[in-house]
Parts: sequence; structure tokens; C-alpha cells
Amino acid sequence: MADRRLSASQTAAAILALALVVGLAGDACHVAAGTTRYEWDGVPAIWRSAIWFPLALSGSVLAAAWLSERAGTPAARVRSRADAVTGAAVVLALYAVSALLNDAPTTVSVVLIGAIAVAVWSWWDPSPGALAVATAAAVLGPLAEIAVVAAGAASYADPVDGLAGVAPWLPCLYFAAGAVAARLWSALRD
Amino acid sequence: MADRRLSASQTAAAILALALVVGLAGDACHVAAGTTRYEWDGVPAIWRSAIWFPLALSGSVLAAAWLSERAGTPAARVRSRADAVTGAAVVLALYAVSALLNDAPTTVSVVLIGAIAVAVWSWWDPSPGALAVATAAAVLGPLAEIAVVAAGAASYADPVDGLAGVAPWLPCLYFAAGAVAARLWSALRD
Amino acid sequence: MADRRLSASQTAAAILALALVVGLAGDACHVAAGTTRYEWDGVPAIWRSAIWFPLALSGSVLAAAWLSERAGTPAARVRSRADAVTGAAVVLALYAVSALLNDAPTTVSVVLIGAIAVAVWSWWDPSPGALAVATAAAVLGPLAEIAVVAAGAASYADPVDGLAGVAPWLPCLYFAAGAVAARLWSALRD
Repeated sequence: MADRRLSASQTAAAILALALVVGLAGDACHVAAGTTRYEWDGVPAIWRSAIWFPLALSGSVLAAAWLSERAGTPAARVRSRADAVTGAAVVLALYAVSALLNDAPTTVSVVLIGAIAVAVWSWWDPSPGALAVATAAAVLGPLAEIAVVAAGAASYADPVDGLAGVAPWLPCLYFAAGAVAARLWSALRD
Repeated sequence: MADRRLSASQTAAAILALALVVGLAGDACHVAAGTTRYEWDGVPAIWRSAIWFPLALSGSVLAAAWLSERAGTPAARVRSRADAVTGAAVVLALYAVSALLNDAPTTVSVVLIGAIAVAVWSWWDPSPGALAVATAAAVLGPLAEIAVVAAGAASYADPVDGLAGVAPWLPCLYFAAGAVAARLWSALRD
Repeated sequence: MADRRLSASQTAAAILALALVVGLAGDACHVAAGTTRYEWDGVPAIWRSAIWFPLALSGSVLAAAWLSERAGTPAARVRSRADAVTGAAVVLALYAVSALLNDAPTTVSVVLIGAIAVAVWSWWDPSPGALAVATAAAVLGPLAEIAVVAAGAASYADPVDGLAGVAPWLPCLYFAAGAVAARLWSALRD
């Protein structure tokens, strides 16, 4: 990819754009498969998402990427812009796979998404810092979605709502996204 | 793998053999799953393919690999013979996955195959040259299959024929194959 | 990961722990999906496995890893502890995927698991030594399971018992596990 180092605002814009594409396409998979449903009428939609979802998601990814960069924990591997595309594409593929698991036993879906999530972390940046961000994402992301479901703004379909209203594999999906987000700033900037 | 540099004809033979294995095994998946069907009786078959399919496919892969090598666009990564095996195996796995998506929503199948295809390009050789070959394959491959379907020689099953008679995810599958083909010549030769 | 070189007993313990996690989680997928069933009552269980399965599996992985290290065949790639986590996670993901293929045509399931197994070998360590261990595992593992099924201790469900009572894709799954096991000793030790 290009050699030019990006400014902070350019890096932030690149992260937002990448997170927006992954979030919108992944969420469209969940809506198309009936995994999730938006419950409030009259909310503007982008593709198949209520407008607040991609905004909240890409804002969270940007915050995670920027805070990780500021924290300065050492990365185990230096990642390039091309690697960032691979990481984002793998997370999106995992997102799409989760939309195919509505009829799968919970054991299988959690083990499958969890195993790939661990592989994403140990491939992308097997550092304690990235592990911490991934773990935080695996806790905070599902908690936020549980609050959204409790507020009645969205819901998961009956077979995949076993974790306080959200999917049992959701922490695994956030773990993978968090691991990649942890080094997205330096990967896209340099 | 071996260290010896192959001659041009040996390299071509290796590419043809690899493309033949991937094409025959992948096509057998599509036929077994009912994704595709050959419509003309009396055409000799290899495994589950009408004989013209593996010949056209491996000839096209060889042409793409040779023309890419001749064009001389710089590769972003040097690839070995072992990498070529990984690339071909991943494309074959993607081919097999597509045979499992006959009942999946189109959004999910296209996002899944598309995300993995982008990951294949950005892992294998994230160069503009490979992107050009992948994009050309994503256009020309489905166009050729649309012509085959229009001629009545083969057909895609009802749920997955939404792109002028072929599967909506077909450009993504060709994109991945084209990306790998773009550097197959040097990977297998050296 | 850590820099400290492990002793032989520590390395063995790490291999046993990793194999136990993968074996128990993967087997739980097979039982949950109805792919396999334990037939003898009164055998103590760990999670969803009869106790002899994880013991036999992790013992076999340890034996394969130790014998490969002793044989001293050269590795094509040096692997780290983080790589070992990735390798184990990918094998576990493949294990979980196989639990989703009970209704898939045999052609598709064998090609899919087989293609990913080849990709695992050619990524992890594309050496003749690892290929030999993977091939031995692909023969001996299914033979052992065929004996277990013949003894009446366990069974595969009707649609996936076509290989003398076990699943046709089982050799491919053992191939992937064997390839990773072949270099697990040095990867975890150093």
C-alpha cells in the first residue's frame, strides 16, 4: 500500500471508514439472517442498520484504537495497512459466519467463533496489551448490546438470545474486533 | 519445498495441475450440493464436471498467471511454493464454503465470500497489480459463466441464480482465485 | 509471549493442556451437534466426553510432538508460542466446523475439511517431516476411532458414518492436528 505516513485526523478517518464498512456489512448479515431485529420504527436507517448502530460501533472502534495507541503498550508484531485490511476482512467474515449459526447448537457456535477469535488475536498481535483491549471489548460490547435490548431498541432472535438477551457468541466476536482495533491506529498510520 | 528453479514449461505444468485439482474438487462440491447442474447429455465428464469446465478454468488460470508475470507489475510480497499451496487450498476451501450457502440469505453469502476474498488478496499479495488481476477475474469469470448458462450448457439452482443466472457471490470467488493466480507463476517457479 | 525456555516436563505439560482444551471443546461440539455419541453408561465424563477420549487424544498429541522432536527432521519454519496458539485455535475451529456438516454432501465436507487441513500444513510447517506426521495421524487416528466404534463405545450419526463407521472427513481433521503436533514441542519450548 502507500508509504506516506498519515496525520492523526487522516488515521482517525481511515479507522472510521473501515469500521463503518465492517459494521454496516456485518449488521446487514445479522438482519438479513434474522439474527437481530431493530424494534423502533421511524429511526433513519443506513443499509439495514438503524443509524445509531454504525455510529456507535465506529466511534467505539476509533476510541479503542486511539486509547490503545496512547497507552503505548508494546505490540508483539508490527502491522501494515495491508495487514489492517486482512484483519478487518477476517473480522467481517467472522461476523457473517455468526449470521449462519442461528440453528447451530450453542456449544458449536461459541467454540467456533471463540476459536477463530483467539486465532485472530494470536495472529494479529499476540501481546498482553492487545489481549487486554480484546477482553475489555468482549465485556463492554455485549454489555452495551444487553442494555440496547433491555431498552427495547433491538432484539436477538429466540434461538440466539441466551446471554441476557444477546447471542452467547457475541463476546467472542467483540474479542476479535477488539484485538484488531488495539493496533489499528499504528497499522493504518504508518 | 524443493529449491530448484523450474523451467517455463514446468511452471506452466504445475499451474495447470494445481488449477485442475482446485477446479475439479470445487466444481464437484457445487454439483454435489446442487448449486450447479450440467444440462447437456453426452458430454464426457471428469469426476462431476463436464470436460470443458476444468479445461477452460485451468487454461484461464494459466493465462492469468502468465500474463501477470509478463506484465511485470511489482509484487508486494514474495511468495514460495508452500505459499502457493496455501493460497490454492484457501481458494478451494472458499469454493467448498460457497456450496454450503444455497439456503443462506444473499447478503450473508456475498459478504462472507467477499470478505474472505479481500483477505486472500491482502494476505497473498496486497499490490495494485494483483488487485487488477483479481478485479478482471471477478468481471470476466462470471461473464463467461453467464454466457454458459445463457447457452443452456449449465445452470445455477433457483436460490442462487440471482446474478443474470449465476450466483451473486461468484464475482467474489473469482476475485480470490484471480488474486492468487496473479503471482502463481513466480511462486511456483522459484 | 514469554521468553523463557521451558524444561522438557514443562513443555510436555503445556502440550497436554493445549491438547486437552482443544480435544474437550472439539468433542463437545461433536456431541452437541449429534455428530458422535458415547454409548457406554457409567463412564465418568469430563464436560461432554467420556473420560478416556481426552486422555487418549492428549496422550497421542504429546507422543506425536515428542517423537517428531526426537526424530529431528528439519522444520521449514520456526514457530513461536503465539503461533502454537494460532495453530491450536485453527484446528479447534476446524473441529467445530466439522460439527456443522452433518447435513452437507460428503463431497463438500471432505473437500472443505481437506482443503483447510492442507492449508494448515503448508502454513504451519511445509516440511516433509510435518507431512509425514500429518499423514500418519490421518491414518492412525481414524483407525483408532474405527476400533472404538467397532467396540461399541461410541458411534457417529447415520449421515456421517460412511468411513467404516466414522466420518469421511475424519482423516482430514487428524491430518491438520498431526501437522501442528509435529512442531508443537519446539514451538512451545522456546
